[in-house]
Amino acid sequence: MLVSQLYAPTLRETPAEAEIVSHQLMLRSGMIRKAAGGVYTYMPLALRVLRKIENIVRQEMDAKGGQELLMPIIQPAEMWQETGRWDVYGDEMFRLKDRHNRDFCLGPTHEEMITTLVRSDVRSYRQLPLKLYQIQNKYRDERRPRFGLMRGREFIMKDLYSFDKDEDGLAKSYDQMYEAYTAIFNRCGLTFRAVEADGGAIGGSGTHEFMVIADSGEAAIVYCPSCEYAANVEKAELEAISIPKEELKTLSIVDTPGTKSIEAVTTLLGITADKVIKTLVYNTDKGVVVALVRGDHEVNEIKLQNLVDCLTIELADEKTIVETLGSIPGFIGPVGIKTPMLIADSTVMNQYNAVCGANTSDKHYCNVNAKRDFSPTIIADIRLIQENDPCPHCSLPVKTARGIEVGQVFKLHTKYSNALKATYLDMNGREQLMVMGCYGIGVSRTMAATIEQNNDEYGIIWPAAIAPYHVVIVPISSKDEAQMSLANSIYKTLNASGIEAVFDDRNERPGVKFKDADLIGYPLKVTVGPKTINENIIEVKVRRTGEVLYFDVNNYLEEIKSLLARL
Amino acid sequence: MLVSQLYAPTLRETPAEAEIVSHQLMLRSGMIRKAAGGVYTYMPLALRVLRKIENIVRQEMDAKGGQELLMPIIQPAEMWQETGRWDVYGDEMFRLKDRHNRDFCLGPTHEEMITTLVRSDVRSYRQLPLKLYQIQNKYRDERRPRFGLMRGREFIMKDLYSFDKDEDGLAKSYDQMYEAYTAIFNRCGLTFRAVEADGGAIGGSGTHEFMVIADSGEAAIVYCPSCEYAANVEKAELEAISIPKEELKTLSIVDTPGTKSIEAVTTLLGITADKVIKTLVYNTDKGVVVALVRGDHEVNEIKLQNLVDCLTIELADEKTIVETLGSIPGFIGPVGIKTPMLIADSTVMNQYNAVCGANTSDKHYCNVNAKRDFSPTIIADIRLIQENDPCPHCSLPVKTARGIEVGQVFKLHTKYSNALKATYLDMNGREQLMVMGCYGIGVSRTMAATIEQNNDEYGIIWPAAIAPYHVVIVPISSKDEAQMSLANSIYKTLNASGIEAVFDDRNERPGVKFKDADLIGYPLKVTVGPKTINENIIEVKVRRTGEVLYFDVNNYLEEIKSLLARL
Repeated sequence: MLVSQLYAPTLRETPAEAEIVSHQLMLRSGMIRKAAGGVYTYMPLALRVLRKIENIVRQEMDAKGGQELLMPIIQPAEMWQETGRWDVYGDEMFRLKDRHNRDFCLGPTHEEMITTLVRSDVRSYRQLPLKLYQIQNKYRDERRPRFGLMRGREFIMKDLYSFDKDEDGLAKSYDQMYEAYTAIFNRCGLTFRAVEADGGAIGGSGTHEFMVIADSGEAAIVYCPSCEYAANVEKAELEAISIPKEELKTLSIVDTPGTKSIEAVTTLLGITADKVIKTLVYNTDKGVVVALVRGDHEVNEIKLQNLVDCLTIELADEKTIVETLGSIPGFIGPVGIKTPMLIADSTVMNQYNAVCGANTSDKHYCNVNAKRDFSPTIIADIRLIQENDPCPHCSLPVKTARGIEVGQVFKLHTKYSNALKATYLDMNGREQLMVMGCYGIGVSRTMAATIEQNNDEYGIIWPAAIAPYHVVIVPISSKDEAQMSLANSIYKTLNASGIEAVFDDRNERPGVKFKDADLIGYPLKVTVGPKTINENIIEVKVRRTGEVLYFDVNNYLEEIKSLLARL
Repeated sequence: MLVSQLYAPTLRETPAEAEIVSHQLMLRSGMIRKAAGGVYTYMPLALRVLRKIENIVRQEMDAKGGQELLMPIIQPAEMWQETGRWDVYGDEMFRLKDRHNRDFCLGPTHEEMITTLVRSDVRSYRQLPLKLYQIQNKYRDERRPRFGLMRGREFIMKDLYSFDKDEDGLAKSYDQMYEAYTAIFNRCGLTFRAVEADGGAIGGSGTHEFMVIADSGEAAIVYCPSCEYAANVEKAELEAISIPKEELKTLSIVDTPGTKSIEAVTTLLGITADKVIKTLVYNTDKGVVVALVRGDHEVNEIKLQNLVDCLTIELADEKTIVETLGSIPGFIGPVGIKTPMLIADSTVMNQYNAVCGANTSDKHYCNVNAKRDFSPTIIADIRLIQENDPCPHCSLPVKTARGIEVGQVFKLHTKYSNALKATYLDMNGREQLMVMGCYGIGVSRTMAATIEQNNDEYGIIWPAAIAPYHVVIVPISSKDEAQMSLANSIYKTLNASGIEAVFDDRNERPGVKFKDADLIGYPLKVTVGPKTINENIIEVKVRRTGEVLYFDVNNYLEEIKSLLARL
């Protein structure tokens, strides 16, 4: 491709709307353009990257026996009503009606569609296992689309669905996909971790998220430097922390005017936060829930939600606290509170002579002891893991990091086959439910995540495996016929050997051409200047390392090939 | 691919819902499954065909300087409002609202989107010409989705948009696309014609449709066996037919009780239909229009619509005829009719002593002569061409045929660049409108059209260039180890040489395997039976011709390659 013809309009300024580096660089390098909030056009360079990621995904899916198909984007409501998710999905689902007033949605996912498809065509155990996948646009009407492709409303996903005869089959399919995902993200040149995750609303249990490690990541993960353990913080399980037992003192009440925060009350009383019981109130679709954690801990709302088995959970407003619980915001505590559902984190049960709100203005209880002074309805692990908490596997201190979720593997078991009656006849002629898994990769998000991990002040640094082109050839002077002719010949030679090259034939100053090359992030830049002409030497600069190499004009092809092989 | 694992559930019975052969065969061969009216899943075999067509399209677009990008499917209403098409599109456009109540549509086409994109990034004549294309789902909420993929509501299109500096540039881009389309449909193995067509509601003038010739085609086309002329019947222009002049007789009125049709009145009066003036009344958004054609001719409503320059046109109901025109359905005629718009086909002006309705019940006028007895507001070519009409180019008789429209090339000129203010600065620094063209190919429809043209009573006959696989290998007995082992070895050999083969390893009777092979339509079938084992001879059957060839087991690869090259 000649750069003079390439449709990649670069921008010198960083658009104000772009908060994170991948978004900024994709706009600046002319890779994407916004059409509406969370809705983008993929320009030619971006599309080339997407196609390369898609092909890597495709190869690894096929290698595990996956078969590609393509399901509709518009899905009739009926199949979603059959599983009950039409109502559950809420505002995140784009809905529309056709001219006959029939309800449709734009598929946010395809469990209903694929299960409906397979149940009508698969009858016998001989047709199983089956792994079907597609790569296409998905739709989620995010409340706050942002970060460019990172959290869009229209985005490209690969979704594979496995259908097995039994749980053993599912376990095998799951492991195969886990291996395939590891291979895919390795081939894309990403630093990532597979973390244990929570099932969430999609249902099922047994799931890993594949997280690209990056500071801009929206997900908090925890990992153990000492063992293999890694998990989404929401998922990480924790044991109760034990503390040396103290003698129980007498419950008392103290004046704590204006101390509405943990920090204020500890400062006033001269104690540490681990001596406080933190009390939070939630409204859920199963009623009001009061949750207790130690003052230096945070509530893990996902664990709480799973425990209560509720679909919605949010912090209660003042009205609920005052009218339903008879308490006062900032001074809530478990002693004497009127609630049908009091859930204590297990570590709270090991606190001695603690401090908590007295459910009345400007007062706290001291010397509070669980069991003696209050009785939780449920005692469970409901806290969020923190840096240096003991690793659930080896007990050594864990680390935390930010991650971008680019993939997820998921055991659905019989959730959908049961709801949609997807059965087969086993060897003995008995009807059995198919056992399912689903496995997603955010293809467009993977492209953005790659940039988050591979950039510098000048622009993008593409791993060669998914770079839009491998090499850019830049003549110093577009007016110099010898340079232009040699650059053109190198361009042709490289392309003829399967190396994807662009030739910057524009009538621009060298600085402009170099800046664009760095911004777009071609792995290698070949400069053709006076030295090339006079000394028969071409200069090759490695974008990632800044390394500059000189090759003979008559013998550069193999050198460039081997350079690319290690990028 | 092993057939035991291939997800292509075949059906023995033809589903009742399928009216045309491509729809029937795609359902039966497990290539597609319906999700809703006009909305289908492409199963693995169909997706392979689609990918091959897409790649042919891609290669030919790139060869003409096209650059692929990918625009959103969901499009904000604002850009459609800017061109006025938000209101014009009507019920055919799928519309939806996001959670913030903003209007979106599912793109039926992308002129607005691409023009909005290009206007913000292209400033200079040096960035032109530009040819941008994409391959993706398009959406049209058809009133009557039918014929499977032929008239769907969700379908795959390639759409390219050209941006040129001037009309000369557009003419060149148009010719390039015309050439590319010819190459594409030739490579797909289709019999087709490029026909002159009418612009229709999309706007612009200068357009050809690429029609695959097939009896099930929804479009009527006309072509000349004597010269190169071919056109959509709606577009074909006609000269007035001259008849020997007759002496004008005196206008008279006759009783014609119950003769509401041309046939009835000609039978009663013992005349031929070319002696009658046929009068039709239309309601349009520009008012009532009365149209006249000779009794043996039909009105071309597209020509009429273009002439009146109206957006909507439909036959008037009885009320309009009676109340607005003071006439009687079945007895309408131009003599004395009260209408502001009387349009006569130019051939009507050459009728002498004709018969027409007398605008009163059960009466006709005889010896009607144009000019003397009635004066049209407009005289123009408004009739539909018919078989044996004179060719507009060479005057010899034309033929008619049915066609499936699989592509269209279209000069938009400055329709959209003007509406959306897409300008550039020319060499002299003056602002100019970009000159545009658009070029579509129905990718999924091309697949269906190929089947319409390539099938027999047993199933599909794929042209090798777009066949899902090239060869199926069928062992006669799946219990015979020698056969299975040899079949497997041939399967591996073919795939290793880039020939896409499937191995029917199922434990089925040979008849079942042969039937499926013919139904799916692999170009070649290799049979491995006792003869293969005993005599070292494999049998290769050509699906298209039924030809059976015998090759040496040790020397079949080149033979199969050269066979495929000519299929």
